[in-house]
Amino acid sequence: MSSTDLLLTFNAGSSTVKIGIFAIDGGKARRIGKGVIDLRAEPLSICLSRGSQAFDVPMKTSITEDLRSVIDESLALLADHFDVAATRAAGHRVVHGGDRFTSAIALDDAAIDAVDALTPLAPLHQPQALRFIRALRHLKPRLAQTASFDTAFHATQDDLVRRFAIPRALHEEGVKRYGFHGLSYKFIAGELARKAPRAAKAVVAHLGSGASLCALDQGVSRDCSMGFSTLDGIPMATRPGWLDPGVILHLAGERKQSFTEIEDLLYHRSGLLGLSGISADTRDLLKDGRPEARQAIDFFTLRIAGEIGRMAVTLRGLDAVVFTAGIGEHQSEIRACVAKRLSWLGLAIDEKANSANEFMISTGESRIAAHVIATDEEQIIADEALSLLGSG
Amino acid sequence: MSSTDLLLTFNAGSSTVKIGIFAIDGGKARRIGKGVIDLRAEPLSICLSRGSQAFDVPMKTSITEDLRSVIDESLALLADHFDVAATRAAGHRVVHGGDRFTSAIALDDAAIDAVDALTPLAPLHQPQALRFIRALRHLKPRLAQTASFDTAFHATQDDLVRRFAIPRALHEEGVKRYGFHGLSYKFIAGELARKAPRAAKAVVAHLGSGASLCALDQGVSRDCSMGFSTLDGIPMATRPGWLDPGVILHLAGERKQSFTEIEDLLYHRSGLLGLSGISADTRDLLKDGRPEARQAIDFFTLRIAGEIGRMAVTLRGLDAVVFTAGIGEHQSEIRACVAKRLSWLGLAIDEKANSANEFMISTGESRIAAHVIATDEEQIIADEALSLLGSG
Repeated sequence: MSSTDLLLTFNAGSSTVKIGIFAIDGGKARRIGKGVIDLRAEPLSICLSRGSQAFDVPMKTSITEDLRSVIDESLALLADHFDVAATRAAGHRVVHGGDRFTSAIALDDAAIDAVDALTPLAPLHQPQALRFIRALRHLKPRLAQTASFDTAFHATQDDLVRRFAIPRALHEEGVKRYGFHGLSYKFIAGELARKAPRAAKAVVAHLGSGASLCALDQGVSRDCSMGFSTLDGIPMATRPGWLDPGVILHLAGERKQSFTEIEDLLYHRSGLLGLSGISADTRDLLKDGRPEARQAIDFFTLRIAGEIGRMAVTLRGLDAVVFTAGIGEHQSEIRACVAKRLSWLGLAIDEKANSANEFMISTGESRIAAHVIATDEEQIIADEALSLLGSG
Repeated sequence: MSSTDLLLTFNAGSSTVKIGIFAIDGGKARRIGKGVIDLRAEPLSICLSRGSQAFDVPMKTSITEDLRSVIDESLALLADHFDVAATRAAGHRVVHGGDRFTSAIALDDAAIDAVDALTPLAPLHQPQALRFIRALRHLKPRLAQTASFDTAFHATQDDLVRRFAIPRALHEEGVKRYGFHGLSYKFIAGELARKAPRAAKAVVAHLGSGASLCALDQGVSRDCSMGFSTLDGIPMATRPGWLDPGVILHLAGERKQSFTEIEDLLYHRSGLLGLSGISADTRDLLKDGRPEARQAIDFFTLRIAGEIGRMAVTLRGLDAVVFTAGIGEHQSEIRACVAKRLSWLGLAIDEKANSANEFMISTGESRIAAHVIATDEEQIIADEALSLLGSG
């Protein structure tokens, strides 16, 4: 226990919540621990870590609609290892900021309602973060809370890039390409500026179970493969990425599938899982000998490389490709397959550096640099929360 | 009038039908005339041309569901200028050949039923060609008829390119990327081999009111921007091209739009028309001073160039870009805008040659060649029909 002020971050997904514990130290947020709860696995437990120590602690509560008891018990368990009473603020990852929120915000009741008003734009994702925000507001009404938006980093994109070729009225009502994974891209842009300042035009591949690409010019977002929803762009664990809109009309019109069936198909049964029929996890697919597994990997890397090609056109050039997130940071074979498809552009991978997950994985002669950078969305949430505390 | 054998081609769209009149001459099909009927404009008339002569001839009949009277009167009017009695065969453009028809076929009753069985894959397009085929079979039961498929040219594509990241069962049931505009691409591949034999890796931009791109390697189709339906790929006059599948879920789920409304939106109110709010026609948009018009043009060229970037990845290189069809052949400003977005790849346009719609519109120094080639789908229909006649 120390008397340092703390800052908590909440990164709530549909199946897990990651809690970050940061010390406010010399005006900066420094991570000192974390907790992860898998919300699909009852009885619940929280996996806590502090430094090199990790504890898997069983929880007594069950999941309720408002998640209050989950938060309450989590804070109590955190208090065994951290000085939770010294918490100055809680920062939340919120998927959708719409057009209204182009940077992080302090959350009062009006702001929470405004965030909730964006739920129609992300009906499957927005409610989960709001549950955590409201539960914490109920339990700790005086605790400062902030929201960091996945869409905000992409507000710099040209209006042209954000459009679909649909009636203007729909665009004005919000049907446009917002872009996601912005906290990750903001972190990567910072790291890239520090470690490779000459890479002006870069495409960042955030490859996790959700996956997207971002085109950066001088660290500024110019394009993102995920647009309006989290379905578009490159294939993901269970989501399809790029899909002919006629496929949905066919499923609804010719096959009489319901909206709910199609939504379930696109969010939960497509992507690498649907394509392989084997697994949603690239690690399983890489180990599996069956041709369907190999095909899913080949499809994944073809679509990633193709989207890098498209984004290079948005950027009018390409200096670097960056791999990040679970797959991007750890799976050298995926990176090698993507890079091979870009060799005609002058990208050459150093196999040894790639196998070792080094920062620089391209050869000295490569016309385009390739990097691996570990991302940290919670650091951005904490930095943004701290910055709002300071200015508040 | 001559006693040369004739061959007719029928290219039936939703709003017009183009009839080609070809002389069979030394074993080849040589175009000698054409007729165009605008099916939206009643009272009907047929615009006939023979050599440099053109006649707009009013028709007495109206459109009926089976189109028999339209065909009957058209043939009678053609007979005033051509020796229609000497017709050996009629070749039809059919949009969808599915997996079954990977080359042109002779049409007997069983084959017509097999073509009709593919209607669920192209419910808006397949029925129109079938009406013409059946009307002609009723009126001239002994006339040989053939079908040339828009999808057939793309049968050479790798299985990987033809997939979506959806469950394998759906792929096996036919939900896959077929590709369209194949008759045009087959014609262009032939011209390109003749006129620029060293351009191994080429992307062809077929830009009409329907529009797509095709990646050719040594004249063989390797990718097409239109996949399962005619909605996907690059934006078109009234269709959107690439659209986040989440937009359709949003329209159906949050906005409670019906299937019919969404289908109408995507086929008839999107694309350049929706995006500009002004016109579906790039000629109007280029002349219009309003920013929405310019934006639609910029969006169109950005998406075309982006898709060329993606296709260069499929091809693992790019030697040439070819522009064809109405917009591609005649609108130099569109070509210049697309090319400018690819200048980082080494594409440089010769402004004078481009303004003159010349075959070679890139400069001598350009690393990537750019060409304008006039397409002729009906020549392919006639060639394929003649080839089937000879082999039958």
